[in-house]
Amino acid sequence: MKLKSRHLLGLEEMSAEEIGLILETAESFKEILERPIKKVPALRGLTVANLFFEPSTRTRFSFELAEKRLSADTVSFSTASSSVKKGETLMDTVKNIEAMKIDQVVIRHSAPGAPHFLAANIGASVINAGDGAHEHPTQALLDLFTLRQKYGRLDGLRVVIVGDIAHSRVARSDIWGLKTMGASVAVCAPKTLLPLDVSQMGVDVFIDLDPAIEGADVINVLRLQRERQSQGLLPSPREYHRRYGVTLERLAGAKKGLTIMHPGPINRGLEITPEVADGPYSVILDQVLNGVAVRMAVLFLLSGGEGGIREEAEVRGEAGIQ
Amino acid sequence: MKLKSRHLLGLEEMSAEEIGLILETAESFKEILERPIKKVPALRGLTVANLFFEPSTRTRFSFELAEKRLSADTVSFSTASSSVKKGETLMDTVKNIEAMKIDQVVIRHSAPGAPHFLAANIGASVINAGDGAHEHPTQALLDLFTLRQKYGRLDGLRVVIVGDIAHSRVARSDIWGLKTMGASVAVCAPKTLLPLDVSQMGVDVFIDLDPAIEGADVINVLRLQRERQSQGLLPSPREYHRRYGVTLERLAGAKKGLTIMHPGPINRGLEITPEVADGPYSVILDQVLNGVAVRMAVLFLLSGGEGGIREEAEVRGEAGIQ
Amino acid sequence: MKLKSRHLLGLEEMSAEEIGLILETAESFKEILERPIKKVPALRGLTVANLFFEPSTRTRFSFELAEKRLSADTVSFSTASSSVKKGETLMDTVKNIEAMKIDQVVIRHSAPGAPHFLAANIGASVINAGDGAHEHPTQALLDLFTLRQKYGRLDGLRVVIVGDIAHSRVARSDIWGLKTMGASVAVCAPKTLLPLDVSQMGVDVFIDLDPAIEGADVINVLRLQRERQSQGLLPSPREYHRRYGVTLERLAGAKKGLTIMHPGPINRGLEITPEVADGPYSVILDQVLNGVAVRMAVLFLLSGGEGGIREEAEVRGEAGIQ
Repeated sequence: MKLKSRHLLGLEEMSAEEIGLILETAESFKEILERPIKKVPALRGLTVANLFFEPSTRTRFSFELAEKRLSADTVSFSTASSSVKKGETLMDTVKNIEAMKIDQVVIRHSAPGAPHFLAANIGASVINAGDGAHEHPTQALLDLFTLRQKYGRLDGLRVVIVGDIAHSRVARSDIWGLKTMGASVAVCAPKTLLPLDVSQMGVDVFIDLDPAIEGADVINVLRLQRERQSQGLLPSPREYHRRYGVTLERLAGAKKGLTIMHPGPINRGLEITPEVADGPYSVILDQVLNGVAVRMAVLFLLSGGEGGIREEAEVRGEAGIQ
Repeated sequence: MKLKSRHLLGLEEMSAEEIGLILETAESFKEILERPIKKVPALRGLTVANLFFEPSTRTRFSFELAEKRLSADTVSFSTASSSVKKGETLMDTVKNIEAMKIDQVVIRHSAPGAPHFLAANIGASVINAGDGAHEHPTQALLDLFTLRQKYGRLDGLRVVIVGDIAHSRVARSDIWGLKTMGASVAVCAPKTLLPLDVSQMGVDVFIDLDPAIEGADVINVLRLQRERQSQGLLPSPREYHRRYGVTLERLAGAKKGLTIMHPGPINRGLEITPEVADGPYSVILDQVLNGVAVRMAVLFLLSGGEGGIREEAEVRGEAGIQ
Repeated sequence: MKLKSRHLLGLEEMSAEEIGLILETAESFKEILERPIKKVPALRGLTVANLFFEPSTRTRFSFELAEKRLSADTVSFSTASSSVKKGETLMDTVKNIEAMKIDQVVIRHSAPGAPHFLAANIGASVINAGDGAHEHPTQALLDLFTLRQKYGRLDGLRVVIVGDIAHSRVARSDIWGLKTMGASVAVCAPKTLLPLDVSQMGVDVFIDLDPAIEGADVINVLRLQRERQSQGLLPSPREYHRRYGVTLERLAGAKKGLTIMHPGPINRGLEITPEVADGPYSVILDQVLNGVAVRMAVLFLLSGGEGGIREEAEVRGEAGIQ
C-alpha cells in the first residue's frame, strides 16, 4: 500500500488506511531509533529542504534528525538566519528551490494554506510542518502514534484537548486524525479561545475543566501563548491557570491510567504544573521521540517507499556509485 | 586539462579553454542531477566552508547542495546567524577557518576583492560567491552554460543585459565571460545606473530599451534594488518599469527564439512582468538547476579533479577507510 | 583505559591519566587531519546536537568539523538563528532534544554550571563548550596538546596567562589542566581583572608584565573584551595596551624558544601586536588545528571508544546496514 498523495498537507483529507500505514511504518523506524546506530540508507541521494518561515527549534531539529537518519541530504533555513527577500513571492522562492532538484520540501509558514498552494504548483513532495492556525499533521500523527503504542488501539479512546483551541493547528490536526481513527474528542477552553466553527467540528465542548476531565482517557494540554492576554482574549495567566491549569488536584477524580500529553514547549506552572508534566501519566517525552519516528515514516513513504525499508545493496545498485 | 588557478575569483582572468572545461564538466554533473540518486563521492572527506558575509538564501542553498551532492562535509555561516567578531580582521577569520584544514572556502562579501585578498594569503581554494559590485563568476558560468545548452554554442550570440549595470557583479562577470566565449554584449540602463567605465567594457550601450532588444538573441534582466530610488539614482519604480520593464508588448518586435534570463530573485512587475518571467522564452528556472551543476563542476575541478568523476572504489582506497 | 565520566564538564575534576588519554587519542586524530581524506566512521549513526546559547563561529565550526569528520550526524542551533522560547526552561529544551535520541550534546551557555546541571539530569553525554566565566575545557585541552606537541612534555613548563583572568573561562580551565599535568602557572593582569579567589588558585600573581614574562616558557595572551572599559574595570584600551600588550619590545628579555598562545579571536594591536601574533614564536594557528583533533578525541572517547579508532567493517556489522 502507498499513500494516495505525494504530499502531507493535513489530516483532514486522510483516510484511516493511510494514517494506519504511516503509524505502522513509524513502528519500524522507532525500532531503528532504539539501535546503537540509528541510520538507514532509505533516502540516500535524495534532498530535503527545510523552509521555516516561522522560527522553530524543536520541530526543525526533529525533521532534520529524521532526514539525516534516513541518509538524505538537507538544506535548511529559518527566517532568523535567512533573508527572505522582499518583492519575491513565496511561489518564486519555492520554485527556485525546487528547480535545484529538491525531492521533498518541509515548510512551516504563518499563512494557512501556504503548503497547499505550493503542493498544487511544484513537483517536489510538500510536508506541512505547521501552517498558521490550520494544520500541523506530523504533530497529530505523533500524538496518534504515542496513544496507539500505549493503548494498542485508538478506536474508542476519549481524548480531551485543553487550551487555546481557536489558534491551535495542533488541535485541528488532532481532532481530524483522532476522529478518523475512531476516537471521541472533546475540547475545553474559555469561550474566547474556542473557534467560531467549533459546533461543526464534531467534538464535545466544555467551558469548565472538571467535567471535561471526567471520563477522559487522555488529556492533551495545549501551550498557551502569553500574547493572548494583550489581545484581550484572556483575563490573566494567573486566572487561566486557576481555571484551566492541569494540576495534580484537578486529576484526583480522573480515570485510572490517564494519559497526559503536551505538544511543547511547556509553560510550567501556567497550563500545566511540573508535577503533572513530569509525572507518571505524562508521555510528553515519548511524544518527542515518536515525532522523529513518525517523521521518518512520512519522509520515507512520500519518497515512494512502500514495502519496508530499502536495503543498502539495493540503494547502491540504483545509484551505480556506492 | 586542468584549471590554471586553484581559485575561482572572477571571469575577467579566465581563458576560453578554462571556461570551456568548466562548462563541459558541468554537463556531466547535470546528467547526475537527472538521476534518482544525485550523489557522487567526488569530494568525500574534503571540507568546504561557506562564509556568507552578506545574507543569501538562494546562492547558499545552491552551493550547499552542490557540496553535499559531491559528498563533501560542509560548515556554514551567514552574517544573520554568526557573530563576526568586531576587532577581528577578515584575514584572521579566514586564517582560522583554514587552520581547521578546510579544503575550499566559498565566500560572499560586500567588499570587492575580498576573495582575491584571501586567495593570495591562504592555502585553501577560494571560490568567489559575489564580492561587492565586482564579480559573481559562478552566476555568469551558469548563464553561459544555460545558453550553450540551448544554442549549442556561445560564439556569435547577441546578449543584452538590462538594468542596474553599475552595481551589478552579475553584469560584470557576464560581460567578461560572454566576450571571452565570442558572444557580443550590449547593456541597457538609465545613465545613472551605468558604470563610469562603461566605454572601456567593450559593449554596446543603450539608454532606450526598444533599440536594445532589436537583434538580441538573449535578454538578461537584472534585479533592480529598490534602494536605488532613495539613493537618488532612480525617479521611481513605476517610471523604471515604464522605461525598462521587460513586458510582452516590448518583446513584440524581438527575434524569434529569444531567450529571457534573470539571476533572481525577481521583482515581478518591476523589471520584468510575470508573463515574461514565466513565459515560453524564459530559462530562469533552468538557470537555477544549472547553477547547481556548474557549482559542482567548479568545486570538483578546484579539488584537483580532471579526467571525469572519481569512482567510489578509488576514493575508498585513497582514504584507507571505507 | 576509558574516561571515568561520560561527560566533559571541566578540567578541575579530571585526573592526569584522563587528560593524558585525551591528548594521546588526539595524536591519532591529528594524523588523520593530515591525510587527503580526513574522515573516519568512528561516530557513524550517532547524533550530536550543538546548542550554542551564546554566539560563536569559531568554536561551533571546530566542533561541527570534528563531528562530521567522525561521520556523526549533527543538528545545531545558535541563539541568533534559534527561537529559544521564553517560558521554557533550559532543562525542558535539553530534555526534549535528548528525547530525540541524541547521543552527545555540546553546549555553550552564559550561566556557569549549565552543562553540569544538564549532565546530572540527562542520559546523553554533555560536552561543555564554555559556561560563563567558569570552564572551557576543550580550549584548555587544545592548549595542553599544542604545548605537549612542541615540548614533548608539560611537566615543568612555566606558563604565564596574561589578561582578563577574572572573566576568563579559558584561564580557569588552563590553570586546572596545566597544574594537573605538572606545569607551573602564573597569571598577570590589572587588579580589577583578577578574580577574588586568585590566592586560592595555586598560581603566581603579577600585576606588571615584565617580571611575569621573565622565566616563562609560554605566554598565553587572553582576548580583552572591550566592554570591560564601560564596566569601569579598565582605564582605556590604549592604557591596557601600554601596560599589558604583548609586543616585540616586551619579549626582548624573554626565554629563547618562548611560545606565544592566544585562544582567539585576536584584537590586533590591543592585547597583542601583529608582529607577535604572526611571528615565529606564535602557535596560534596550530592551536586552531589542534582544536579539531582534540574535539574529535573527546567526542570519540565519550562515545565509548577506547582502543583506537573503530574500523569501518566493525561499524557496518554493528549497524547491520552498511
